[in-house]
Amino acid sequence: MPAQDNFAIVDAELPQPRDGEVLVRTRYLSVDPYMRGRMSDRKSYVAPFAVNEVMNGGVVGEVIESRSAAFKPGDIVTGQLPWQLYTVAKAAELRKIDPNLAPVTTALGVLGMPGLTAYFGLMDIGKPREGETVVVSGAAGAVGMTVCQIAKIQGCRVVGIAGSDEKNEYLEHELWVDRTINYKTAVDMKQALKDACPNGVDIYFDNVGGSVSDAVLPLVNKGARIIICGQISLYNLEQPDVGPRPQPYLLVNRALMQGFIITDYAPRFAEGVIQLGRWLAEGKMKYAENIVDGFENTPQAFLGLFSGENLGKQLVRVED
Amino acid sequence: MPAQDNFAIVDAELPQPRDGEVLVRTRYLSVDPYMRGRMSDRKSYVAPFAVNEVMNGGVVGEVIESRSAAFKPGDIVTGQLPWQLYTVAKAAELRKIDPNLAPVTTALGVLGMPGLTAYFGLMDIGKPREGETVVVSGAAGAVGMTVCQIAKIQGCRVVGIAGSDEKNEYLEHELWVDRTINYKTAVDMKQALKDACPNGVDIYFDNVGGSVSDAVLPLVNKGARIIICGQISLYNLEQPDVGPRPQPYLLVNRALMQGFIITDYAPRFAEGVIQLGRWLAEGKMKYAENIVDGFENTPQAFLGLFSGENLGKQLVRVED
Repeated sequence: MPAQDNFAIVDAELPQPRDGEVLVRTRYLSVDPYMRGRMSDRKSYVAPFAVNEVMNGGVVGEVIESRSAAFKPGDIVTGQLPWQLYTVAKAAELRKIDPNLAPVTTALGVLGMPGLTAYFGLMDIGKPREGETVVVSGAAGAVGMTVCQIAKIQGCRVVGIAGSDEKNEYLEHELWVDRTINYKTAVDMKQALKDACPNGVDIYFDNVGGSVSDAVLPLVNKGARIIICGQISLYNLEQPDVGPRPQPYLLVNRALMQGFIITDYAPRFAEGVIQLGRWLAEGKMKYAENIVDGFENTPQAFLGLFSGENLGKQLVRVED
Repeated sequence: MPAQDNFAIVDAELPQPRDGEVLVRTRYLSVDPYMRGRMSDRKSYVAPFAVNEVMNGGVVGEVIESRSAAFKPGDIVTGQLPWQLYTVAKAAELRKIDPNLAPVTTALGVLGMPGLTAYFGLMDIGKPREGETVVVSGAAGAVGMTVCQIAKIQGCRVVGIAGSDEKNEYLEHELWVDRTINYKTAVDMKQALKDACPNGVDIYFDNVGGSVSDAVLPLVNKGARIIICGQISLYNLEQPDVGPRPQPYLLVNRALMQGFIITDYAPRFAEGVIQLGRWLAEGKMKYAENIVDGFENTPQAFLGLFSGENLGKQLVRVED
């Protein structure tokens, strides 16, 4: 488990933007579970962070100075940028955001990486059909709550698993999730899931892994699709993860279990943003944000992800 | 683990065939690992055998008496029939075999259920591409050796895992498998697999499950396909199966793990039989059979599957 003292805030000289570069002031930083994977040198899908180098991630910022024809001062932009108050970035690394279309923070949430993760994972791998039962772990996170809502739009019965009654109330009352389970207080997860899924489980969108997933597997139906999006319960384990092997459930039910990484869908991001934006505009989709103020609180906001403190997208706001 | 004394041979009255029925004398019986699953009342993809009822499975027999226009005495037929010396079957349950096209036993092996399992599992789920590395567990069984050969035909590097040096010699020398591993004598399965798969694993065709599969998972490449065909190592466990969870490997490598049941492919069986028959006729594919003589030895032949006694398709021949 990473701790506050694994982070340090340091002062550094700010370089001048050169031709084709832009000076960006950071306004919002995204902290995400996947970053934990980059703090280890195990084989993974992104290169590990180097010790004593600056962390980076999704950022929304304002252009202060531009030496690129693509941007002018005052423009709001997003990109994968270092955790800095100010950054000199190549114009090609940035994407302009129109603040009139949606609040700029949605570029880091429902209209950004987490929203696209929910959209392509559920639609492309899960292929939901009307009347099917969809179980979502980490249901109150940025990805999970979007999955719940897309599944509802597709006409599915949605069962959300989250770690607090407050989160579950939000899911049921604000997002029309059919049933929720608090995995921290459930006496018998298997029984709670059985009660919530009288017709079994057709799709399991897994953000969490571990014992929560162990309880879902025995309920999967013939032809079930299990989408491995994240395994946050495992990211900080010091011992190899051990549990009931899922292969027998996959075999008997001719079920599919598939891992995916959202960057593989980059060529189709526009399609996803358009669809998500339409559902937002039509009022069919909501989003929640958990905003911490102050650049210096970024490590704490990140660490909070692993104790499940966030309802919805966890962001850090950087004041003027 | 089932034992000889779970079986009994009993005498029974032979009914007369009625209109649309055929009297068949059994000539070959197939014994298959999947039958073990039917000896339990756990949820599975076929109904369990009932206690004190006759076992059934793939049979090749000869028509002795026919009250159907579809068959005449002397015809060789195959079907899912009870373990009996003689059976009265509905004509619709039987399929005629032409003994001039291929030996009649191939209807229970390479041109029957095991061959089709290999073909559709590998081609439809595995989608092998030239140059990819395919690992096959249970490689010397009826399904496994067909998978190895189809993968070679597709231009893949093939690594077979089996339980004896004799089996592995057959795989390497008769079936042109690139590398083999004896899981019973390998000192370090992970290292042996690493050595055999210098470019990682693109496809894992899993007939076995358990610790053999645990050793394969850390080697899977980006976009790997893991085909869950059987889990013979688990069928006789008395405790729930526990091991390293595969989800993290699937996630990091955006890999797919899919269970399948060959009967789901019934509408495409003709396609598979034609392709397999062509490879046989062209000399691109071989098969091996392990034939036990005597109807009374059927239980013993079945039990031998779980100690890995068979090289290739395990059959029982019923003498005149």
